Amino acid sequence: MSENKFGKIEGFPEGSVFEKRSEIKAAGLHNHLVNGISRVAGVGCDCIVLNGGYIDDQDSGDKILYTGEGGRKKNSTKHTFDQPFLRGNLDLSKNKYNGLPIRVIRGSKHFEKKYSPISGYRYDGLYYLDDYYAEEGAHGHRIWRYSLTKEVNTDLPPARGKDTPAPRRERTTNQPQRNPTIPQTLKMDYDFKCQVCDIRLEANGVPHAIGAHIKGLGTPHEGPDIRENMLILCPNCHYLFDAFAFSIADDFSLIGRDGNLTVNRNHNIELDFIRYHREKFEIASRI
Amino acid sequence: MSENKFGKIEGFPEGSVFEKRSEIKAAGLHNHLVNGISRVAGVGCDCIVLNGGYIDDQDSGDKILYTGEGGRKKNSTKHTFDQPFLRGNLDLSKNKYNGLPIRVIRGSKHFEKKYSPISGYRYDGLYYLDDYYAEEGAHGHRIWRYSLTKEVNTDLPPARGKDTPAPRRERTTNQPQRNPTIPQTLKMDYDFKCQVCDIRLEANGVPHAIGAHIKGLGTPHEGPDIRENMLILCPNCHYLFDAFAFSIADDFSLIGRDGNLTVNRNHNIELDFIRYHREKFEIASRI
Repeated sequence: MSENKFGKIEGFPEGSVFEKRSEIKAAGLHNHLVNGISRVAGVGCDCIVLNGGYIDDQDSGDKILYTGEGGRKKNSTKHTFDQPFLRGNLDLSKNKYNGLPIRVIRGSKHFEKKYSPISGYRYDGLYYLDDYYAEEGAHGHRIWRYSLTKEVNTDLPPARGKDTPAPRRERTTNQPQRNPTIPQTLKMDYDFKCQVCDIRLEANGVPHAIGAHIKGLGTPHEGPDIRENMLILCPNCHYLFDAFAFSIADDFSLIGRDGNLTVNRNHNIELDFIRYHREKFEIASRI
Repeated sequence: MSENKFGKIEGFPEGSVFEKRSEIKAAGLHNHLVNGISRVAGVGCDCIVLNGGYIDDQDSGDKILYTGEGGRKKNSTKHTFDQPFLRGNLDLSKNKYNGLPIRVIRGSKHFEKKYSPISGYRYDGLYYLDDYYAEEGAHGHRIWRYSLTKEVNTDLPPARGKDTPAPRRERTTNQPQRNPTIPQTLKMDYDFKCQVCDIRLEANGVPHAIGAHIKGLGTPHEGPDIRENMLILCPNCHYLFDAFAFSIADDFSLIGRDGNLTVNRNHNIELDFIRYHREKFEIASRI
């Protein structure tokens, strides 16, 4: 499992073109030579290739409706069974909650000719997963659909038939870099149970929790992206912790609500980060 | 309470300049003539003016650390009591959870001269609230701090001393328009209690819930932004509903978990939207 493979890859700006899938793989943009979905197992999808596509997929340049993988026998384009909510389909769904960007690559066989390159492949920048859901496909079996939106305020991919592609600028994001494998490992250590209220959320066999930084990342808090600065929380307790409804004492008892933080033996929470949160909590809760 | 006052105002692109606060008010960019914070009560902040500032505010163009209002006697710049978590300070904090953009206007008296106009005021585009927290200010009293980040991939405001300001393009966002007063009214109708599990979250006297669309807004679902298509949910039940862990029958009993949806007499949930969700739920939960 490689680290930090989400987002922009140095040296390959938006608009980069490739002749073959093997070049895309060598550039580190996508893990595979054939599959559409590239992913970090249990974490999320980092890249998709659009080359072909399901009969009612849609692509308007900045918005894509993408169909998951599976449900077809090898070398068949006909769906003869339900697509499973596993592997690529499962990991792509996680981007809705982890907010990680997905690199989109369009190939010359992409169904939407307007935005496909005339030959080879083109990297078209970062997209975010707005939503996913299951529906009955044209052949009567379940397909998983994913709707993606291009990073706000970036250019559309170049349309065919225009002589000169639109100018593209290199852009940078304001988001602090996170290593998504840190919360993933910690979530598994806690079996996705909230360290505050012990609840474990699950949807269709897939558990869900939030890896919350105790001292926030980025300005102004400048907390580090390490497991010693992280708690596994359900969304409700995440909100309450974040909004200073409660805090945590040095002995891990809760302040402002009953109970104790559950802390595993191998999770060495740094007390300095807890104290930073507690200081803000104490000032916030003065009447 | 006017509607849809968040975000871009037609006719006043980023970089628009104004001589006086009254012109800013007349343009519909900001509600007040003196206050820094413009807001829709109970919903969020739509605009702030930076003109002066607290001693350790920060402004690097794309990131702003802003201090809330109050804590000072009239016409004094010295903080002599704790800033309350009320009015502007409270409503500005809500942007962290509602995700609404904040118009930022810099005046010539703004402490950070690099990004302030030489005279008058300048509208510098949309910023989002990353975080807020309380701390002890330089005078020993509580201040509320707000950290904002400019919309991703937009230009920095023009810096002084450059002959020509950087070119600015009109940009559009991909987000579907929402009317934030609809969920606010509905939340108050339910006293911020989750319609599924009845929990009511509260932090420092401020309740919190999510106004969730049953049939999603925007592509591909194209659900409408009306209260008949909305549920008031806690973050946990919002995740579970959204991820198809459960759905709702026509008689409002829950499917996939025990219990019934709480529905107020004046909340006429449209069954077509419930059925749309249920159909997706049923396909998603096939093994």
